[in-house]
Amino acid sequence: MTAAFDLIALDADDTLWHNETLYSQAQEKLAGLLAPFLDGEQVVRELFETEMGNLAYFGYGIKGFALSMIETAVKVSGGRVGGSEIQQIVDLAKEMQQAPVHLLEHVEEVIPKLAASHSLMLITKGDLFDQQAKLARSELAPYFENVKVVAEKTLEMYRMLLEGSGIEPQRFLMVGNSLRSDILPVVRLGAHAIHIPYHLTWAHEVVSVEDWEEDGYVELEHIGLLPEFIQRLEQGG
Amino acid sequence: MTAAFDLIALDADDTLWHNETLYSQAQEKLAGLLAPFLDGEQVVRELFETEMGNLAYFGYGIKGFALSMIETAVKVSGGRVGGSEIQQIVDLAKEMQQAPVHLLEHVEEVIPKLAASHSLMLITKGDLFDQQAKLARSELAPYFENVKVVAEKTLEMYRMLLEGSGIEPQRFLMVGNSLRSDILPVVRLGAHAIHIPYHLTWAHEVVSVEDWEEDGYVELEHIGLLPEFIQRLEQGG
Repeated sequence: MTAAFDLIALDADDTLWHNETLYSQAQEKLAGLLAPFLDGEQVVRELFETEMGNLAYFGYGIKGFALSMIETAVKVSGGRVGGSEIQQIVDLAKEMQQAPVHLLEHVEEVIPKLAASHSLMLITKGDLFDQQAKLARSELAPYFENVKVVAEKTLEMYRMLLEGSGIEPQRFLMVGNSLRSDILPVVRLGAHAIHIPYHLTWAHEVVSVEDWEEDGYVELEHIGLLPEFIQRLEQGG
Repeated sequence: MTAAFDLIALDADDTLWHNETLYSQAQEKLAGLLAPFLDGEQVVRELFETEMGNLAYFGYGIKGFALSMIETAVKVSGGRVGGSEIQQIVDLAKEMQQAPVHLLEHVEEVIPKLAASHSLMLITKGDLFDQQAKLARSELAPYFENVKVVAEKTLEMYRMLLEGSGIEPQRFLMVGNSLRSDILPVVRLGAHAIHIPYHLTWAHEVVSVEDWEEDGYVELEHIGLLPEFIQRLEQGG
């Protein structure tokens, strides 16, 4: 048995640990805070619009999200929001920064197993400070030889990563929950990708190695299936 | 003549471009905004304390600074600050994010010159999104083979960088304005460092290569002196 991959890279947010739930809980708190001014659903809609408008200024991550929450509070209250509410939003951002990291099911067993036979890299989008803090709290750091925090996961980013480390695309595997960031650019480069959707609403029970060749990537129901799938691959299907 | 260094790394903020001025201008604007509540000097002192207290939550960078400005505004106004002032602080953060990058004197000539003969890396602390945006606006990106944005510049970080790239400490040179981040950890590793203070209040007119061995690093008055110093080194002093 020879290793099929020189490098296996994994996404972090919503692939290794829960992330989206942290943001949706914060949204609910903001909606509660702004209930005197506007209906909760509309607060969430306003927040989303503000976030999208601010992406070019602030990028991804908790701090940019907090500034968008504050801007939303000023907007939906017509400037009448009080200092105490603003401070509560700042405090909410601090809580988010320090929130415990909840690993997804199977991650705790799967990552050490993969690390024993392969070189692992974490590739994550977002705020460097946030992501490093989360990795430290996750206790997964020792299993990753490299950690890469990037502004966006583009085809160009993956291409430079492979060129810079001298790895052939067909010897690279990326694993993540986002088709746009983790899968499609990787497949376009001729490298391999495994899609593990977050909050799966449907399930492929069986994945065959042949699917790989048809779509350029395969989909697994959960990360617990990853070691066996890689092992089957390396034993020739 | 042989190259003395396999890698020359440079700090960015206040080494390649002005940074501190952007923050001090923002501080002044905040002091103006909060003048109805507190004297300007005290606002600046409160802001600094808030920033230091928030470092563990937010790290370095404009977004964390903005959240600290907002927290300071709530605090010094006793919660009476208005939505309009809060929005002005958020807008100030957006202005900072988009502010033009002002290169320090000589940088525009020196960096292409160094890049012609050496492999250059940018190593900067702070927010990934901020730093990548500034590098793009600086038009210096093509001269750097690698860009590393880190949470803190520690001895451990430099050690992992050298080990990871297989570079001997004595073949590595770091250039920057901060003794704490750019010089001391590098010297402790047995690598070379050149200190170029920002807003120099005094000047060494002549630097001899012998100084190198005494202190473990040398100090140059401005970055314009860097190519000649390196050339002298490579010609044996």
